[in-house]
Amino acid sequence: MNQRLQKLQTWMKENEIEVSFLTSTENVFYLTGYYTDPHERLLALAVFQEAEPFLVCPAMEVHDARNSGWEQEIIGYSDIQNPWELIHKSINNRISNISKAAIEKEHMNVERYEQLQHLFPKAVFVSAEEKVRMLRMIKDAKELKTIEEACALADYAVQFGASEIKEGKTELQVLNALEYALKEKGVTEMSFSTMVLTGANAASPHGNPGETKIQKGDFVLFDLGVVVDRYCSDITRTVAYGDINDQQKEIYDTVLKAQLAAIEASKPGVTAAEVDLTARKIIADAGYGEYFPHRLGHGLGIGVHEYPSMTETNQLVIEEGMVYTIEPGIYVPNVAGVRIEDDVYITADGVKVLTKFPKELQIIK
Amino acid sequence: MNQRLQKLQTWMKENEIEVSFLTSTENVFYLTGYYTDPHERLLALAVFQEAEPFLVCPAMEVHDARNSGWEQEIIGYSDIQNPWELIHKSINNRISNISKAAIEKEHMNVERYEQLQHLFPKAVFVSAEEKVRMLRMIKDAKELKTIEEACALADYAVQFGASEIKEGKTELQVLNALEYALKEKGVTEMSFSTMVLTGANAASPHGNPGETKIQKGDFVLFDLGVVVDRYCSDITRTVAYGDINDQQKEIYDTVLKAQLAAIEASKPGVTAAEVDLTARKIIADAGYGEYFPHRLGHGLGIGVHEYPSMTETNQLVIEEGMVYTIEPGIYVPNVAGVRIEDDVYITADGVKVLTKFPKELQIIK
Repeated sequence: MNQRLQKLQTWMKENEIEVSFLTSTENVFYLTGYYTDPHERLLALAVFQEAEPFLVCPAMEVHDARNSGWEQEIIGYSDIQNPWELIHKSINNRISNISKAAIEKEHMNVERYEQLQHLFPKAVFVSAEEKVRMLRMIKDAKELKTIEEACALADYAVQFGASEIKEGKTELQVLNALEYALKEKGVTEMSFSTMVLTGANAASPHGNPGETKIQKGDFVLFDLGVVVDRYCSDITRTVAYGDINDQQKEIYDTVLKAQLAAIEASKPGVTAAEVDLTARKIIADAGYGEYFPHRLGHGLGIGVHEYPSMTETNQLVIEEGMVYTIEPGIYVPNVAGVRIEDDVYITADGVKVLTKFPKELQIIK
Repeated sequence: MNQRLQKLQTWMKENEIEVSFLTSTENVFYLTGYYTDPHERLLALAVFQEAEPFLVCPAMEVHDARNSGWEQEIIGYSDIQNPWELIHKSINNRISNISKAAIEKEHMNVERYEQLQHLFPKAVFVSAEEKVRMLRMIKDAKELKTIEEACALADYAVQFGASEIKEGKTELQVLNALEYALKEKGVTEMSFSTMVLTGANAASPHGNPGETKIQKGDFVLFDLGVVVDRYCSDITRTVAYGDINDQQKEIYDTVLKAQLAAIEASKPGVTAAEVDLTARKIIADAGYGEYFPHRLGHGLGIGVHEYPSMTETNQLVIEEGMVYTIEPGIYVPNVAGVRIEDDVYITADGVKVLTKFPKELQIIK
């Protein structure tokens, strides 16, 4: 049994939960090592306090699931079988009474919930999600290494994108060229829809890349991430195309100062709120407080938005092994939009910054 | 009130449903004209037998929702508001007692279901999905026109992809070039992950595009679709690279014969099963029955898999206005994989074929 499952079992014992029935692609992957998106078909992992866990997947995927390294039972069901009958039998083989079950309440749909309620009419259903989020928050060495690879590709993407900037090119042209370059490096998935925004679009909270042409004097904002072996990176850089004015420069310098201060403040023992407020205070003191309308950052890993949430109110204590983004921004409509974002890993006494594209203002001539 | 909502209301009256509470991006778009993917935030449409329906969305999207043409009430909620309280109040303003509510049981998660149960403790919850699927199955003139545009781009993609085939190029290289060409035409979304499969990969039901190089004597299979204004197309063509052998040729001819026969059989009044079996019999008679392991096709529209499901057992009667795929295939491991797929629209007395790339065997030299 792997350590992640053992930790889940410890939690189940403490909370008198007889079975955890997990159904999201991400959480099943985290706990079993098997990644699949079965679309409308059922994927599930049943975990017990003592008994052997089992995985449920479409019959045609059993072979892949076994090859992924999962050594415990796998229940495969064909399109003409009812998986719930097979699940009922396998659970009953392990345990005679279910009074409390943990499920992913934000993931499981009502149709499946009614199936489970029918199978276990006496059970109370609680949420397993908070616990798995807390487990996923602390990365192990292998996860760190994978995220570092994803960050290196994100750095490359920004570098390539910046080199594509030319007078009259559109946001979408630069975006497509950048993603094509990544595909040639074997990248098959981005963490989220890539953003390349120029001028006024970068200064709008709802900007979407389009046919706007890049012009001299614009800030061009890149926000993107690459997925490597199911783990995400997430980087933002803002570069100048040609000469910018004094206010644009001041905004850039303020964001950079705030970003560096938040990195400096990140270490075990401080709270997420303290880190957020370190950056927020610098931006407010410079007179741009109202133009920084979002949280400082978010955890990332298998998901691009994980714990910890780096908000000004989150009292969660930062620990070694966390990976999160630090991404302050200032968006002044029709003046400038600047965001600078790194992914950081928390070490025993500080941080390792995983994204490395330069942050000193880059002026493309 | 639009016709689609009126049809839903008629169904609600017949079934004594006081409120339908719809939450999926696709169904809300179909019924309101407003398309948004609010990710983890709540999107909902509440429909009543007589009272005015209302839309629920994040506050920052209210403006877009109004601009999309929705003229009835819109409830916007900020990140610090509880949308369920606002919903409760708006429903109570319209109707005093909910004894039966329709929801999307395959879409709504348990967390939200518990909120609704809490608000309406006496309500029975039934599924609204089957009804909306039946409504969406029949396309109107505007929907047909949009799908035709998406089909024309799918034709272009296959043509471009076929022109990129060269000795030693990999599946991914051809795929990336084809998608890049589509992006230059303004395409921003594919209906599903594009498939370019060569040789043995095309003959495997689980083939995924990768680093396999295209070689002389291969069949190269393209399966792809383009999204235009939220509507999907879906085409498959299989082309030969260089000379192929007699068995490959026989397999191609069999699939084509089956495909043309199923198109011929498609018209109002026949059942989905009859159409499927028309193709299936031709393939079985040629001795390849066991190598055609999937249904003949599926409806498409806002979703890439809609009603009707074209299976050998579905007794649903084909009607004017349906759009579905006809995509028989034969996959003989290590010999050949061939699938030919068109999208068809059912007219008063037959079909209009919407995908037009040639189906006579194309041999790329």
